[in-house]
Amino acid sequence: MGKKPRVGIVLGSASDRSLGLEIAQTLTEFELPFELVVASAHRTPAKAALYAQEAAARGLKVLIAVAGLAAHLPGVLAAATTLPVIGVPAVSGTLGGLDALLAIAQMPAGIPVGCVGIANGRNAALLAVAILAAFDHNLARRLKTYRQELEAKVEAGEKKLLAELNKNFT
Amino acid sequence: MGKKPRVGIVLGSASDRSLGLEIAQTLTEFELPFELVVASAHRTPAKAALYAQEAAARGLKVLIAVAGLAAHLPGVLAAATTLPVIGVPAVSGTLGGLDALLAIAQMPAGIPVGCVGIANGRNAALLAVAILAAFDHNLARRLKTYRQELEAKVEAGEKKLLAELNKNFT
Amino acid sequence: MGKKPRVGIVLGSASDRSLGLEIAQTLTEFELPFELVVASAHRTPAKAALYAQEAAARGLKVLIAVAGLAAHLPGVLAAATTLPVIGVPAVSGTLGGLDALLAIAQMPAGIPVGCVGIANGRNAALLAVAILAAFDHNLARRLKTYRQELEAKVEAGEKKLLAELNKNFT
Amino acid sequence: MGKKPRVGIVLGSASDRSLGLEIAQTLTEFELPFELVVASAHRTPAKAALYAQEAAARGLKVLIAVAGLAAHLPGVLAAATTLPVIGVPAVSGTLGGLDALLAIAQMPAGIPVGCVGIANGRNAALLAVAILAAFDHNLARRLKTYRQELEAKVEAGEKKLLAELNKNFT
Amino acid sequence: MGKKPRVGIVLGSASDRSLGLEIAQTLTEFELPFELVVASAHRTPAKAALYAQEAAARGLKVLIAVAGLAAHLPGVLAAATTLPVIGVPAVSGTLGGLDALLAIAQMPAGIPVGCVGIANGRNAALLAVAILAAFDHNLARRLKTYRQELEAKVEAGEKKLLAELNKNFT
Amino acid sequence: MGKKPRVGIVLGSASDRSLGLEIAQTLTEFELPFELVVASAHRTPAKAALYAQEAAARGLKVLIAVAGLAAHLPGVLAAATTLPVIGVPAVSGTLGGLDALLAIAQMPAGIPVGCVGIANGRNAALLAVAILAAFDHNLARRLKTYRQELEAKVEAGEKKLLAELNKNFT
Amino acid sequence: MGKKPRVGIVLGSASDRSLGLEIAQTLTEFELPFELVVASAHRTPAKAALYAQEAAARGLKVLIAVAGLAAHLPGVLAAATTLPVIGVPAVSGTLGGLDALLAIAQMPAGIPVGCVGIANGRNAALLAVAILAAFDHNLARRLKTYRQELEAKVEAGEKKLLAELNKNFT
Amino acid sequence: MGKKPRVGIVLGSASDRSLGLEIAQTLTEFELPFELVVASAHRTPAKAALYAQEAAARGLKVLIAVAGLAAHLPGVLAAATTLPVIGVPAVSGTLGGLDALLAIAQMPAGIPVGCVGIANGRNAALLAVAILAAFDHNLARRLKTYRQELEAKVEAGEKKLLAELNKNFT
Repeated sequence: MGKKPRVGIVLGSASDRSLGLEIAQTLTEFELPFELVVASAHRTPAKAALYAQEAAARGLKVLIAVAGLAAHLPGVLAAATTLPVIGVPAVSGTLGGLDALLAIAQMPAGIPVGCVGIANGRNAALLAVAILAAFDHNLARRLKTYRQELEAKVEAGEKKLLAELNKNFT
Repeated sequence: MGKKPRVGIVLGSASDRSLGLEIAQTLTEFELPFELVVASAHRTPAKAALYAQEAAARGLKVLIAVAGLAAHLPGVLAAATTLPVIGVPAVSGTLGGLDALLAIAQMPAGIPVGCVGIANGRNAALLAVAILAAFDHNLARRLKTYRQELEAKVEAGEKKLLAELNKNFT
Repeated sequence: MGKKPRVGIVLGSASDRSLGLEIAQTLTEFELPFELVVASAHRTPAKAALYAQEAAARGLKVLIAVAGLAAHLPGVLAAATTLPVIGVPAVSGTLGGLDALLAIAQMPAGIPVGCVGIANGRNAALLAVAILAAFDHNLARRLKTYRQELEAKVEAGEKKLLAELNKNFT
Repeated sequence: MGKKPRVGIVLGSASDRSLGLEIAQTLTEFELPFELVVASAHRTPAKAALYAQEAAARGLKVLIAVAGLAAHLPGVLAAATTLPVIGVPAVSGTLGGLDALLAIAQMPAGIPVGCVGIANGRNAALLAVAILAAFDHNLARRLKTYRQELEAKVEAGEKKLLAELNKNFT
Repeated sequence: MGKKPRVGIVLGSASDRSLGLEIAQTLTEFELPFELVVASAHRTPAKAALYAQEAAARGLKVLIAVAGLAAHLPGVLAAATTLPVIGVPAVSGTLGGLDALLAIAQMPAGIPVGCVGIANGRNAALLAVAILAAFDHNLARRLKTYRQELEAKVEAGEKKLLAELNKNFT
Repeated sequence: MGKKPRVGIVLGSASDRSLGLEIAQTLTEFELPFELVVASAHRTPAKAALYAQEAAARGLKVLIAVAGLAAHLPGVLAAATTLPVIGVPAVSGTLGGLDALLAIAQMPAGIPVGCVGIANGRNAALLAVAILAAFDHNLARRLKTYRQELEAKVEAGEKKLLAELNKNFT
Repeated sequence: MGKKPRVGIVLGSASDRSLGLEIAQTLTEFELPFELVVASAHRTPAKAALYAQEAAARGLKVLIAVAGLAAHLPGVLAAATTLPVIGVPAVSGTLGGLDALLAIAQMPAGIPVGCVGIANGRNAALLAVAILAAFDHNLARRLKTYRQELEAKVEAGEKKLLAELNKNFT
Repeated sequence: MGKKPRVGIVLGSASDRSLGLEIAQTLTEFELPFELVVASAHRTPAKAALYAQEAAARGLKVLIAVAGLAAHLPGVLAAATTLPVIGVPAVSGTLGGLDALLAIAQMPAGIPVGCVGIANGRNAALLAVAILAAFDHNLARRLKTYRQELEAKVEAGEKKLLAELNKNFT
């Protein structure tokens, strides 16, 4: 994180810690400098808005916001910046994150948020990588390599499963 | 609306007009002075927050916020005031207002919103009346009268229906 | 609880104990005198209705009702009093409290209930505080202090998380 | 309706008129004397409870309750009588009656309601007929005849459809 | 179970054992003779239909059917008898029994089933008791006593909870 | 329909007419002989079961069952035959066919049904074609041609849309 | 698995291992030769499409695809083959597989998938057996035997449960 | 559309025409060159994949994919490119687009899609603008102007509504 951050990760609560770390881990794999803040749409709305307002000027290119329940944080950030905002619905409470998914995806026309899957911090980070990679050939190449690694993992998983299958069903 | 307003009605969009008028109509029946503003959580977040911050000092006692889809407005107001905030889920889009209901009711612990039924502007106004009536004997008496009128309407409806029934099934 | 209670907490079942204690705990933090009763909309409907009918005359200003499944209790109380009623959907059964949320929020026009989030006893208590604080400057000041404490907790959580992050990603 | 009624139909609102007439029509087909009242769980709770309390003594054997939204009426009646109560979820509002279905079916243990399909007044009446027919051979025979008529209607529908099919696809 | 059974309990699978025992236990509390069979709508459809066809002639007055997932059993029984059929949605799989609730309640017009809450075997038994009690004064009296015991339990629960509350908050 | 039918279409009600005709139309495009019956799982269960029991011996290879609400028909057929059964959820009532989708797809282990999309009669017919085509090279070739026609339609749609676009945005 | 496979099992991820083994186990009970591959609609789309394109020529008659979340795999396969494709919604994430169920069943008109219940690998295998059995008398006979075994299991379950019941309630 | 396109709009079907035009209209307001293709994940999967594979090399920076029902298109594109993909759930069928929302947002970890609200073509276009604007100061300035215009519209809506209100309630 020594270099000037390109991605800002905003957690609605410190309890979203594990999603935050998953995002940080993924960005680190791509050597993408990032920063992380905790800012609640409801408990620290001014901090959240201010962070988003200043983000572009500070050189950030993408914001990732994690929030659960009535997950307003991504929308609050999007209202305060022209940067692209990616929202991650966290699983809080008893509805499996469906509440957060709707609260993030169903933004009214005018202020968009790009929503990824429930608790899918990895995809939020990868979408940020994709956005940056559209303007950075090296990063695009890395992303292609990552895709190849995904493929290799599928093959490895198949190999292991077939071995188990052959043992049991021959 | 000549007198100092006690209730602030905030619409997330001018398209929530009919719910706004229903609330205004109900408050007028109780001779409760109110004011109405249009302030969007996403398109005019600063206006929304400022309105809520100054509401108590201006003598308002309750805020009613109407919003659809990812209905963040009631939460944005609640974060900016200590006044009680009542949220009304509007029906925008294709999910029948379920998205707005969850986005309003499922607020995280710390910043409460009292949510009424989907598109139920009347109940939002009546809950505001109930809050004010808890501290105003005259208003409480009026509210009791209103309840008696509701009863009378049920009886009138029954009478009419029985007349129809007797015609058809005797 | 020595002083005359201002808030009445009504549990639909003694099994809603933990939500009841969370509400009691929150009101105690604000030094708000309260009382607690167990009254079921279905098993002791007369007790529930009577409690609500007499609540205003006994000096109560707000009722908080906790119930699960087909959560009729808040509506039963609201039908029997002009005081504001706050409903808390409890999680009973297998639908994560969605049944209770709808049974509380979707009241027909005429008899309002202000619904908070599923199992969110804290917000129910805080909404009661907000209602009382609208008419009590000292309480409003306390509520502002509480909001500042919430902010401080967010900052403390951020600090701790950043320390962990710096250890892992530097 | 000259004879002593055996079934009590209770509508939560005169606006549930068409479901009430469908139930009345079905009971009339079986020559089952009934009565109809409008009594709201929220606007006239005392009337609703009193009606249920006195129902058994007045010779009624089954109650059918129709209600929409947070459909508390069947539960309120069931709490006040030992007679079997059949609930019909009406379609009010924007959720297709799912709210009413849950509010009627998901009663807590101790006070049962038998819920039929959304807006299915016919099945509510037929379930009342089935209950009475279990203790009345003539009625049971009639119900069997009705079932045969249903079968005949299926056959007639098939015949008509096949004629259309043969015209189009030969 | 020595006496001639009045209620037939039909389980769609032996894995619905605990719901079956809860129903049996409740009927036993009311000294109501019953019988229990396992008959699947899909694996033993002929047995299920035959059981229902002969039920009335064998003196049964009510059938209770328990089933999960695409819970067809109550409908299959109802199609084969004129006796009232009560359906209990069991929780199988991952949707919390919502699938079974809809498959039981949403019967097409003509063949009714009275659906109780998800996994609510107790209410199914109590609804059967209510049906029988409508034609049996002794049983109605017992049911009233049961209701008083429910009330007493609520009071006992309140007493215990208040003791705990007084210890913690005084 | 002169030749010996290979596919049996079973409608739960003559009101499912339009889905039945869509299926018949699609099978006719593939020159697949079929037959159509109306047989209700609830109103004519014996007819439905008998039809399924005899289907294989009569030379049928696939059954397609259309039903709405608590859509038991596909399961009833599947329980009575070893032929593959395809279920089509019809849209009856107010839940958009979600009830029928669950009642068809969520069959218990042991008796499978292959469920297609809500009101998607075309896909049900095409799945039947695919099953038959797996054992019939000519039919497989036709199905490939159909797929090419689908592609051609996409291209034609694109062409038309681009023409409109060019007119409006150049 | 020595013989030429008739059924192709495709897992979207090696983490769907247990469903894959359940399917393999069931097919083995019917002595149906099969093969298993892991191919992701998103991580190895070319492999998935190629596998489906070549499946018919290699003698496969049915494909079974297992996938969770936005479960695109069955549709991707169906788009690339004219063989019948059976989809199994896996339970990944927090919505109990409802997302996968909709993503599999709700295919657009033109490219059908036959969807079985959530996580119901057994039914997927049995549906494949049914398809093959429609063209194979020996297999059809085996399937009938299997159905009889299911019946016998129901009877055995009943016997055991009645023994327990008699012990407890006599 | 004379200039080299930066955004690729992909419609799953020509029937998604109105959403396609809304996206085109919005991009045109920002003078962003785009192209539009119709490519179905199921009917023309090779075309869809090929389009995505070549998109980056042809200078496109963002893809927007519109699809309904089991909306696989955005995921199919995302699997074939490293460019950011924005998904728009269209409303096809009877579930209000909830199926498409889940099929787009709930992508498995590894291949992200940024999902906007149901039928919200405008937000999809605006998110594409935001992505491009993060690397283009002129575009960012335009986007800020757009936001100010949104604010002005809110104010204009308020003004008009207050005029109506003053007429009715003074």
